[in-house]
Amino acid sequence: MINVLHQSINQHVEITKEEVANMLPYFNVIPVKKKQILLSPGDTVVPKFFVISGSIRQYLVTDSGIEHTIIFSLEGWWLTDLGSFLEDQQGKYYIEAMEDGEVAAISKANFDQLFEDFPALNIYFRKLYQKAVMAKDTRILNMLSNKAEDRFLQFAEKYPTLMQRIPQYIIASYLGVTPEFFSRMKSKLSQTKP
Amino acid sequence: MINVLHQSINQHVEITKEEVANMLPYFNVIPVKKKQILLSPGDTVVPKFFVISGSIRQYLVTDSGIEHTIIFSLEGWWLTDLGSFLEDQQGKYYIEAMEDGEVAAISKANFDQLFEDFPALNIYFRKLYQKAVMAKDTRILNMLSNKAEDRFLQFAEKYPTLMQRIPQYIIASYLGVTPEFFSRMKSKLSQTKP
Repeated sequence: MINVLHQSINQHVEITKEEVANMLPYFNVIPVKKKQILLSPGDTVVPKFFVISGSIRQYLVTDSGIEHTIIFSLEGWWLTDLGSFLEDQQGKYYIEAMEDGEVAAISKANFDQLFEDFPALNIYFRKLYQKAVMAKDTRILNMLSNKAEDRFLQFAEKYPTLMQRIPQYIIASYLGVTPEFFSRMKSKLSQTKP
Repeated sequence: MINVLHQSINQHVEITKEEVANMLPYFNVIPVKKKQILLSPGDTVVPKFFVISGSIRQYLVTDSGIEHTIIFSLEGWWLTDLGSFLEDQQGKYYIEAMEDGEVAAISKANFDQLFEDFPALNIYFRKLYQKAVMAKDTRILNMLSNKAEDRFLQFAEKYPTLMQRIPQYIIASYLGVTPEFFSRMKSKLSQTKP
């Protein structure tokens, strides 16, 4: 975990491996299996997850049974049901492992303490959230202005590894298209490739 | 400006009015008129704006001439074309005043310097961006899972003052609905009110 966390933090603010090692006691490391549910709607304790290996996703199931994937996280990314985490409310989403791997969970209390003890993390998280805001603005713009086919093509171009690693019904539920549409697009794409 | 900025920062981290006064030289205060364009696609210098009074919005016009409003900002909120601002790239969006008022513009260089000189702002912006991420996740979820009518009703409930202050074609372009649909919804809503 030290290496993955050190690399992630060090992209935004200089920090030593020793400092990162001192952060480990704030986390619980959890080995996860593909399809394992880490968090469900109604859960009263919502931690923040850091992905050490593998990948996880956050999704919601509507009353009519449709899955909507809000976000993915790969190695070195963070993920949580942020509203519930920050405001100590019941969880509203599912968080599920998409692959076998390992995640580190941190409670709200420990997360707050982490900023007290390692103030440089304020810079790290300011920059991370800043990037997240940018990415989400782009996604919103795509949803407002692009046809489903363009959304598919942009996703395929931006995240080629995700297209390989993650089941396509999950990506379809992220893009807001049906799995049937997604699989038509995917076979069209593979035909046009040299 | 001092009061509005002090109030905004103080919601997230304790700071004195004197410290806020020392930040003012980093900004240019610009009086704006309704419909005034503050930034256009292709502009090479993209500042970050802080709204002192009035309101501004960020939008895009597609090749087919359709306007998509990405975000609004009222008094005490920040707004910029974040990608262009952070990466010193040409602007991609319009930023326009929706009402007469005053905004404070800060350059990327001054913004970076501000964090050097006032490290407490890392906490302020970490928390601001954190809230922005939450709000954008909610918006994405609404776009994925809700019908246009539900999006309208949620917006009307959450931002009653915006419904009064801002032209309805702008809110329609934020919700991703046609102005005609929006105005049908609005008259339906006013009929059901006691």
